[in-house]
Amino acid sequence: MLIAESQSMLFEAPLPLQSGASIRGYSLSYETYGTLNADQSNAVLICHALNASHHVAGVYADQPNNTGWWDNMIGPGKSLDTDRFFVIGVNNLGSCFGSTGPMHVNPETGREYGADFPVITVEDWVNAQARLLDALGIEQLAAVMGGSLGGMQALSWTLQYPERVKHAVVVASAPNLNAENIAFNEVARRAIVTDPDFHNGHFYAQGVVPKRGLRIARMIGHITYLSDDVMNEKFGRELRQAVTDNATGYKYSTQDVEFQIESYLRYQGDKFSEYFDANTYLLITRALDYFDPARAFGGNLSEALARARCKFLLVSFSTDWRFSPARSREMVKALLDNHRDVSYAEIDAPHGHDAFLLDDARYMNVVRSYFENIARGLNPGGAA
Amino acid sequence: MLIAESQSMLFEAPLPLQSGASIRGYSLSYETYGTLNADQSNAVLICHALNASHHVAGVYADQPNNTGWWDNMIGPGKSLDTDRFFVIGVNNLGSCFGSTGPMHVNPETGREYGADFPVITVEDWVNAQARLLDALGIEQLAAVMGGSLGGMQALSWTLQYPERVKHAVVVASAPNLNAENIAFNEVARRAIVTDPDFHNGHFYAQGVVPKRGLRIARMIGHITYLSDDVMNEKFGRELRQAVTDNATGYKYSTQDVEFQIESYLRYQGDKFSEYFDANTYLLITRALDYFDPARAFGGNLSEALARARCKFLLVSFSTDWRFSPARSREMVKALLDNHRDVSYAEIDAPHGHDAFLLDDARYMNVVRSYFENIARGLNPGGAA
Repeated sequence: MLIAESQSMLFEAPLPLQSGASIRGYSLSYETYGTLNADQSNAVLICHALNASHHVAGVYADQPNNTGWWDNMIGPGKSLDTDRFFVIGVNNLGSCFGSTGPMHVNPETGREYGADFPVITVEDWVNAQARLLDALGIEQLAAVMGGSLGGMQALSWTLQYPERVKHAVVVASAPNLNAENIAFNEVARRAIVTDPDFHNGHFYAQGVVPKRGLRIARMIGHITYLSDDVMNEKFGRELRQAVTDNATGYKYSTQDVEFQIESYLRYQGDKFSEYFDANTYLLITRALDYFDPARAFGGNLSEALARARCKFLLVSFSTDWRFSPARSREMVKALLDNHRDVSYAEIDAPHGHDAFLLDDARYMNVVRSYFENIARGLNPGGAA
Repeated sequence: MLIAESQSMLFEAPLPLQSGASIRGYSLSYETYGTLNADQSNAVLICHALNASHHVAGVYADQPNNTGWWDNMIGPGKSLDTDRFFVIGVNNLGSCFGSTGPMHVNPETGREYGADFPVITVEDWVNAQARLLDALGIEQLAAVMGGSLGGMQALSWTLQYPERVKHAVVVASAPNLNAENIAFNEVARRAIVTDPDFHNGHFYAQGVVPKRGLRIARMIGHITYLSDDVMNEKFGRELRQAVTDNATGYKYSTQDVEFQIESYLRYQGDKFSEYFDANTYLLITRALDYFDPARAFGGNLSEALARARCKFLLVSFSTDWRFSPARSREMVKALLDNHRDVSYAEIDAPHGHDAFLLDDARYMNVVRSYFENIARGLNPGGAA
């Protein structure tokens, strides 16, 4: 098993943000796997989605059960082979897994940022990641890769730093959120913000956590990650406890868990509320809402993507109703309008949006083939 | 305009409930429109869904803007013509629009029921409605009709009282909830129950209302009532306020309303929390969860529907993802397996589940034709 080591880098210089604000004295947590070759041509940056982190692959020496979130994809001999590529995972600014976020002290005030943490966009994250690459001595990425919100970052890389990316792998993503996506985010945020323990975002000083809101937010999220079909297959109308003392087995209660799906969602919500930061949830869902490269082009995605120079692999999953295949096809079309080199795989998978994190032989093989092609273009000796 | 008058009927005898409990001394609010003919053969019962009431058609004399929720469907000369039919709307037990519900005093304790209101099922509602018909002197219904949860009641009528129903009109409904439906209900309930103002269901005595939870519940509901397409068409990514001082027009805030869809959902949530009872929300969503006539038949819907004797009209809407056309087709198939007389219309409408409440010429005409056929079978003189 790959042994990962969490690292941290401090950035003193202010990072200007899209909102007009800036942030200074922040640090980014990151991990690297594999070895950077001599000409620095084999680096692959992994961008994470809502609740993931820089811990992408492997385990920590002292935490053998803490496996990276994309370990099925990335590692020695895996689809993204760390024997060939130097892979970098980075925790985004504003997240809650090590990088500077709302629970950290604002050097301007000496207090936790809380709700005063500046609003961060996908573009801001990409700029912060670019600075990290600068510090690591990496001028150009062999590839940038991400799923869901991570895919949005990968796409944004190709627009913000077209010369610094040779390939982009955009999985289960979209060129922006649609109204329904925004609506679900908004309900989740309202649940958090209206929790009396939120204290307008400054709950750290109160010694409380808005767990009720976080639970609701996570339950809503989970519903949208799963397909209708897989929910029916995994849970259906199964009761939590088989009861034999009456014909239907119902307990007839409005508050007790009656169905398996309720038990599952409550468990997921409880678990999430134990570790995720409420302010981070607001920030990251807002970054999702705001991402829309076509906006500056009157909604014309083809014009927006004209800046991209790299080659693309896009992957979508048939039952993903959060970021449906139609959304990936919009990106494919806009890239083809610009005569870009695009590979596209629409994987017939039952698992909904979650499929991008799961094992599926066709999915894994598509990514493997794509990276094998990239590897063939690398200079094995490392001389430029 | 039809002038409606809300009436109430008290039932002293205990009503045995599916849960094993019973309720006594309850009253039902109802309205009637049109005239019962001499042989009592032209009665149509309308069953309501989650947040509707007995006020189905017309307006009240002193409230000229308070229009019944299905007034576009029901009235003089309308699809369900009150010049020909005697139409009855009834508010369900446990609801909050007049009939006995959680905010009323429990005669056993002298206090509001609150969370002690017994759990009510679709079957219980049908039994209570049957008692109301007994009291009104109606032995057999020309038709029972409902949409969504109201359609479940209509279906249940045909199974519980097969000889008392000649026709059932089941619109935008399902033979049970699937896992995703239950999941959304559960999140809404958790939002209410975990609101500190819920006080375990006994908030009336505290002089508070769990409005935060009700708002979240309603926002979730609204998302599932609308189709993805209609949301994109009505709201898309439109910002609430057009701002011209920067390229994107974003305000960069995690808590302020930024998009029109957020404004719409917050408004709907606020409005709902002003008038709807939290305990009623729990009860009615649970009634939805529990409804499953096939459960007693090992999941075999064809066997479950073998008891039905009447003729059926089923209607579904192409973009309804809450109760999709596939769910209506399950019922059609099960009825055909039993050689029942079934008409089925799948209306290509953009509005999602909400379509059953909206004007659509094809939908209205299908229902009109169906009731015209029923009317032709009535004895116009009223002699049996």
